Amino acid sequence: MRSLMSGRESGMTNPDKSADIYREALELHGRKNGKLEIRAKVPLRTKRDLARAYTPGVAEVCRVIEKDKDLAYRYTLKANTVAIVTDGSAVLGLGNIGAYGAIPVMEGKAILFKKFADIDAFPICIENYNSSFADMVRNIAPVFGGINLEDIAAPRCFEVEEALQEIGIPVMHDDQHGTAIVVLAALLNACKATGKEFEDLNIVICGAGAAGYAIARLLKCIGYNPGYCRTVHDIIVCDRKGIIHRQREGLYANKYKFILADETNRTGRTGDVAQAMEGADVFIGVSAPGIITKKMVRRMNKDPIVFAMANPVPEIMPGDALDAGAIIAGTGRSDFPNQINNALAFPGVFRGALDARATKITNEMKVAAAHALAGYIRTPTKDHILPSVLDRHVTAAIAKAVKEAAIAGGCSRSAGT
Amino acid sequence: MRSLMSGRESGMTNPDKSADIYREALELHGRKNGKLEIRAKVPLRTKRDLARAYTPGVAEVCRVIEKDKDLAYRYTLKANTVAIVTDGSAVLGLGNIGAYGAIPVMEGKAILFKKFADIDAFPICIENYNSSFADMVRNIAPVFGGINLEDIAAPRCFEVEEALQEIGIPVMHDDQHGTAIVVLAALLNACKATGKEFEDLNIVICGAGAAGYAIARLLKCIGYNPGYCRTVHDIIVCDRKGIIHRQREGLYANKYKFILADETNRTGRTGDVAQAMEGADVFIGVSAPGIITKKMVRRMNKDPIVFAMANPVPEIMPGDALDAGAIIAGTGRSDFPNQINNALAFPGVFRGALDARATKITNEMKVAAAHALAGYIRTPTKDHILPSVLDRHVTAAIAKAVKEAAIAGGCSRSAGT
Repeated sequence: MRSLMSGRESGMTNPDKSADIYREALELHGRKNGKLEIRAKVPLRTKRDLARAYTPGVAEVCRVIEKDKDLAYRYTLKANTVAIVTDGSAVLGLGNIGAYGAIPVMEGKAILFKKFADIDAFPICIENYNSSFADMVRNIAPVFGGINLEDIAAPRCFEVEEALQEIGIPVMHDDQHGTAIVVLAALLNACKATGKEFEDLNIVICGAGAAGYAIARLLKCIGYNPGYCRTVHDIIVCDRKGIIHRQREGLYANKYKFILADETNRTGRTGDVAQAMEGADVFIGVSAPGIITKKMVRRMNKDPIVFAMANPVPEIMPGDALDAGAIIAGTGRSDFPNQINNALAFPGVFRGALDARATKITNEMKVAAAHALAGYIRTPTKDHILPSVLDRHVTAAIAKAVKEAAIAGGCSRSAGT
Repeated sequence: MRSLMSGRESGMTNPDKSADIYREALELHGRKNGKLEIRAKVPLRTKRDLARAYTPGVAEVCRVIEKDKDLAYRYTLKANTVAIVTDGSAVLGLGNIGAYGAIPVMEGKAILFKKFADIDAFPICIENYNSSFADMVRNIAPVFGGINLEDIAAPRCFEVEEALQEIGIPVMHDDQHGTAIVVLAALLNACKATGKEFEDLNIVICGAGAAGYAIARLLKCIGYNPGYCRTVHDIIVCDRKGIIHRQREGLYANKYKFILADETNRTGRTGDVAQAMEGADVFIGVSAPGIITKKMVRRMNKDPIVFAMANPVPEIMPGDALDAGAIIAGTGRSDFPNQINNALAFPGVFRGALDARATKITNEMKVAAAHALAGYIRTPTKDHILPSVLDRHVTAAIAKAVKEAAIAGGCSRSAGT
């Protein structure tokens, strides 16, 4: 969860208002001890009800599933249940606050799952694991139809997700791919709004953490079939040390930086982010406050597209970027235009994956989600790149596209029932 | 979950009726994909709702809990949520059917938790664990206020429960202690009905698995302060090889049998179950069908008390035990008198433990639960030993006693709020 407005930033713009919302939030959370409730969806009034839902009737359901595990999708909560799994190592803008501190965010995410996608999501907050994080998730997988990894610090988030790709149910780290899907959708629409060709884009991504890495992968088709989808011309990724390039020292120490060096920056450019931005079409910031100036934007190509998603303070304030001639395709705050909000993507992605009884979430499914999200806006303009997060029809549109991509990609258990 | 009537037994008494209930059970479970649903208990209609329940407001709740983990009880689902954890190694009478096969029973248990105790319970079905089972449970503990271990084969169930006693939240293997609590309650009332003194009882337990071991421990105060509660005069435990005694060969191979040998059978008796029963006041069967004869019951003391809980076919049919002059204090089936049904105990035990924000479930709390359950019947008679499982007030009575025992025992986080 990184792209929704965090608590801190709101405090920066209006301390009084934020104090209000914090007080109200504490009151709300304390009123009924959190936000989630588990309820029966079958009647339990008579002895006959009990005999059907529990013993002796339930024994038959157990026997049937024992013979064919896939029937757990028909007869149990697995069909519609997602685990939201975190270790609390990168929560909101709060950092590594641990498994307990993370619970309220996971509960919040669960109610969004219910609200937007009618998915039953349950928080799994992992503390002090002696065993491998991936093993832990694998071991508790039977009751879940999908795993939403959340708020896990890089590079562990990459390793865990990678290790879980073959467990037979969809596993997605939302901070990576939810963000990347919404960025891709916004970029597709920003191209329409500016008349740029997606395939010609030269992009600078500032920030090589969870979101930056996933955005680069999705835009550049890193790690999957580039024939399936469109890819941009080139990407240059910058981290705190500047442009990532193949000659950088110590690159082998971090597998994920190595992959970025290997797959981006075709012409071997070096230097800092200002140098990277010269002549670029798109700037995507998932980094730090205030690091971009108007001057740097002015040195980009004509009609530059800017995503400034650092929270609470963006890489460049939207007004300054506009002044410098940019179009603001994405921000990290609901009070700024075109917020890149994961909640636009993850409900539909998991809804589609569950509807397809998918075995994984492929890059093709993510790309399909991004196109469905972009396509939801008929005629994108500079001021209207993405739909509102409260528009419930968005989920249905994405879910349909994701389900179809899962079936087309052969990673669906059912033929679409 | 062993003491509710399993599927099989019902089939034995009336195949047609059981076919009906099995068909109805499958239909019910398939109708909405299982039995559990996760819902929001806070509103999520407006942007302000979202700001309170999710970002930015939630950040304040996270920060508060990060500083003081105990506040997770006030502000999160932890206060009212229990994990039902199994590996599916001993499900109903079906044996080791695995994590998937176990899901319907765990969901069923969860809806009983909700119905009887308004507790939000969620199934955790563990498969193929590479790491220690106990570590797995420890690691996912943050969101839970309690852990109900379920349907785990002996002796693993003992080891896992033991390893988890110090994790700071109540952990109880229901197949052991739920059964033991109800048996103790029934025995207390059977004493009243027959005029026997609890402290004078000589008891034979047939079966040294999860239930047998826990019953012996609870009745004999094994492993805790015998000053706190009443203990019976002596217990003889039999397993497949007959009476467990200190001279038996190979006893050191099984820690739990060793404990039984060490703490029961004061006079060092040897032989088979028939010999054990000679002169006994109480027979408690958690073993195998039809192993007890009328003749064996007749060799017991005057007014023998018989629990015959093997499923589907009991150790002795209730009619035969009655013929032989016994009082039937407990059976394993809802169509027999005085069913020993765990559902009489576990909802109240966990309700009380959660209400006390208990750090563990002590033997004192179990004894308090048993006394509350027994005391619920004002004037026990041979035909009225235990209340109906559908009587919701039972839970409240047990919860109150358990909470008080937790506070008195100093294992409550709160002073009873």
